[in-house]
Amino acid sequence: MNIIIRPATEADLPAIHALVYELAVYEKEPEAVVTTPAEYLEDFRKGLFEAQVAELDGRIVGMTLFYMAYSTWRGKMLYLDDFVVQENYRRYGIGQLLFDAFVEEGRRRGCRLVKWQVLDWNEPALDFYRKNNAVIETNWWNGKVLF
Amino acid sequence: MNIIIRPATEADLPAIHALVYELAVYEKEPEAVVTTPAEYLEDFRKGLFEAQVAELDGRIVGMTLFYMAYSTWRGKMLYLDDFVVQENYRRYGIGQLLFDAFVEEGRRRGCRLVKWQVLDWNEPALDFYRKNNAVIETNWWNGKVLF
Repeated sequence: MNIIIRPATEADLPAIHALVYELAVYEKEPEAVVTTPAEYLEDFRKGLFEAQVAELDGRIVGMTLFYMAYSTWRGKMLYLDDFVVQENYRRYGIGQLLFDAFVEEGRRRGCRLVKWQVLDWNEPALDFYRKNNAVIETNWWNGKVLF
Repeated sequence: MNIIIRPATEADLPAIHALVYELAVYEKEPEAVVTTPAEYLEDFRKGLFEAQVAELDGRIVGMTLFYMAYSTWRGKMLYLDDFVVQENYRRYGIGQLLFDAFVEEGRRRGCRLVKWQVLDWNEPALDFYRKNNAVIETNWWNGKVLF
């Protein structure tokens, strides 16, 4: 397979939005996705997030979506908000290529850490992160106010 | 008490760092704070984070520290990385003023949500957030790779 990992462009945003939705279905919260591809375009142009995509024969089959963030304890941080490989293309190592490229991007920018979240029941994802020597924290809860 | 809530300036960063450290001690992880006031200054100038402070008679007694972030599901998000009121000044409503100003800042910027994290054993903080009608999620774990 000829996989290319590269920074996302505006043209990739509809495919990225479709992957986000696919993962939200797997995570049993499709109704929580209220964003649209048009909003992604507007927010991408404002620099609110960046992404990398996995391209196979001209098709987008996976992506990481991230932004610069900050930890008061540790400093500069790259935050991975979403990470998806399309279901039909799993188990070929595409996720590993995407994750490695994301971590390398954090290192290249001089970040002190990269961070993300994972559902407590998502064993395949947890296995993947443990295999990659990630620290998994189970004692922090999320607080949110929605507008 | 004459409390003023206002955006932080460079001059406030040493006091902000001291408050971050005070909270990390309470959270039983003081050794996890590897940042310095000098780094805060450099990163604040780069726009990596913003803050609001509570000033009482010219002294900084509390703060919120936050940055613009993004939710692939919901869109623009203001993320609260740290929120502290100095121990001697608790129970006067200063935390409520700071939290209200933070939430209002998210609303003013057209965010779809504000988000933060709280330790699962921190009952006083959880009570405060529940009283403020926050959604508390207990099913997401954090993943990290430290550099």
